Amino acid sequence: MTNPVLIEVTRGLLVESRHRGAVAVVDAAGTMVLEIGEAATPVFPRSAVKALQALPLVERGAADRYGFGDEELALACASHSGEPAHVAGVERMLAKAGLDPQALRCGAHWPIAQAAAAAVERTGAPSALHNNCSGKHAGFLCLACAMGVDHAEYFRPEHPVQREVRAVLEDFTGTALVKERCAIDGCSVPTWAVPLRNLAHAFAKFGTGQGVSPERARAAARLRHACARKPWHVAGTGRFCTEVMQLFGTRVFVKTGAEGVFCGALPQQGLGIAIKCDDGASRAAQAVMAGVIARFLPLDATERAALAPLLHPTLRNWNGLDVGAVRVTDALQ
Amino acid sequence: MTNPVLIEVTRGLLVESRHRGAVAVVDAAGTMVLEIGEAATPVFPRSAVKALQALPLVERGAADRYGFGDEELALACASHSGEPAHVAGVERMLAKAGLDPQALRCGAHWPIAQAAAAAVERTGAPSALHNNCSGKHAGFLCLACAMGVDHAEYFRPEHPVQREVRAVLEDFTGTALVKERCAIDGCSVPTWAVPLRNLAHAFAKFGTGQGVSPERARAAARLRHACARKPWHVAGTGRFCTEVMQLFGTRVFVKTGAEGVFCGALPQQGLGIAIKCDDGASRAAQAVMAGVIARFLPLDATERAALAPLLHPTLRNWNGLDVGAVRVTDALQ
Repeated sequence: MTNPVLIEVTRGLLVESRHRGAVAVVDAAGTMVLEIGEAATPVFPRSAVKALQALPLVERGAADRYGFGDEELALACASHSGEPAHVAGVERMLAKAGLDPQALRCGAHWPIAQAAAAAVERTGAPSALHNNCSGKHAGFLCLACAMGVDHAEYFRPEHPVQREVRAVLEDFTGTALVKERCAIDGCSVPTWAVPLRNLAHAFAKFGTGQGVSPERARAAARLRHACARKPWHVAGTGRFCTEVMQLFGTRVFVKTGAEGVFCGALPQQGLGIAIKCDDGASRAAQAVMAGVIARFLPLDATERAALAPLLHPTLRNWNGLDVGAVRVTDALQ
Repeated sequence: MTNPVLIEVTRGLLVESRHRGAVAVVDAAGTMVLEIGEAATPVFPRSAVKALQALPLVERGAADRYGFGDEELALACASHSGEPAHVAGVERMLAKAGLDPQALRCGAHWPIAQAAAAAVERTGAPSALHNNCSGKHAGFLCLACAMGVDHAEYFRPEHPVQREVRAVLEDFTGTALVKERCAIDGCSVPTWAVPLRNLAHAFAKFGTGQGVSPERARAAARLRHACARKPWHVAGTGRFCTEVMQLFGTRVFVKTGAEGVFCGALPQQGLGIAIKCDDGASRAAQAVMAGVIARFLPLDATERAALAPLLHPTLRNWNGLDVGAVRVTDALQ
């Protein structure tokens, strides 16, 4: 099956580029509410499931033990831009468990935020703290400490921390995460491919608490509320996830993943969302997510206007001239 | 028509992302030698035609008048990384025509090269000199000076410089560049959409000198040889265009464009190449170009080995682990 074109990128009067992809919107009972393209093929969710990967941190009592507030929990779910308060927050998480930043095994990269990268460059080179996944890794490390296990190899599939994470992912997605579908993520932890429909179902359960244990539902709600209250900590200045959650609070949970993946939940509608752009383009996955929100979330005029720049971004060149746009196709209507 | 998948990006044992696109390989007589996907749809060539846009600079005598050598001519054809010697070269081009960098109207952006961006950040902000198109713009400005016309608005479609450029593009592509197919490029000059087959034909003519006037053929050869001798000036450290032309010299001319466009010529085979990835991905267009070169250019074992990392790049994560690969599909065989 060939997935339909979901996004067109225009320049002048013509369509310059096209992005194909698939969308699944599923309710907490597992009923498919919207299926566009192929939703049965396994897809690596990458960072889009960080909030699920953070659940053991809460469920196992580590978050309470180390006194984590909304900022720390949001950082555990984040692909952050490496801005100073992100880095400081991750350092604080580690310090609360008596850990040093050296324990992070995510690898180093320059902060996503240009200004933050420039500031880092002035004094040295980026560290693992600047990696967009450092909050998730700090969460893993704190979980290892709270579980009383050696944290040194916390990123390996067979480590107790990753076994916990895997069990949570299996519970939410309703799939067996087998070795053949396991690959290594950008930050070196395992990523298991899961069909889009199962990812959407997982986020319907995450958003509603239905279909999982009461403890798990409470942990999910705690993470969702933390992200809704501290959306800047989930991504950063000017980032899509941050702007959407700043706009809608607890009504929308969204999380981006590499290679054109996006997951989300509309808790009041009881819906979970999973998107994969075939070619891995974030610009497309974002606009599709905005399109799904516009379709399923009741919006007032102000909210609709605020969502418009995310749904139909204008493309400007280096002189600030309007040269084209990103637009959602009829396939999403 | 749906273009075929040309590139697969793997992670672990699975294909994570896919890139569709079209390829045209045409000889100097205009005969299609290879057509994959849709080659009749107009495509914005963007920076892939910079070498054609630089022809009036040579033909009108401006390059001689200002004493341009290979480096300056390569910069006029370049999408450079903004490294110090690129910036110095562009400044030198402007100075030779008595112009100040303030005359550049391409807009400013951070150097593509991370180290160069960091160095710029230490002392201030990027200028138009760091824009990857600044060499092309310096060429336009020098052409305006040599033509004795006011250079202030050299980037506008109706300016004599852009009229010259347009005439050259029409001659090479054999198409009328009409207003409806004109849009604004990232650096604010016009870009006209042209079918892929015409772009490929244009580069067969550019590579062989056939089908254009003797003066134009000599100007084309001069630019090709300048790029072959100074490939670092066409792109920069570690960049695909630079590495390919360092490897093959005058046997291959290649030039990237934004939004997944790539053009090139194999002069000894008398072939022109034009590629467009539907989704605009450079990683895909590059690997497709490497695949076309591997198919049509006779290679010895050493050359084949040297081309392999461009044809089948390994993907490494932030810890340097091998997590996947980019691979050309059978559609290109």
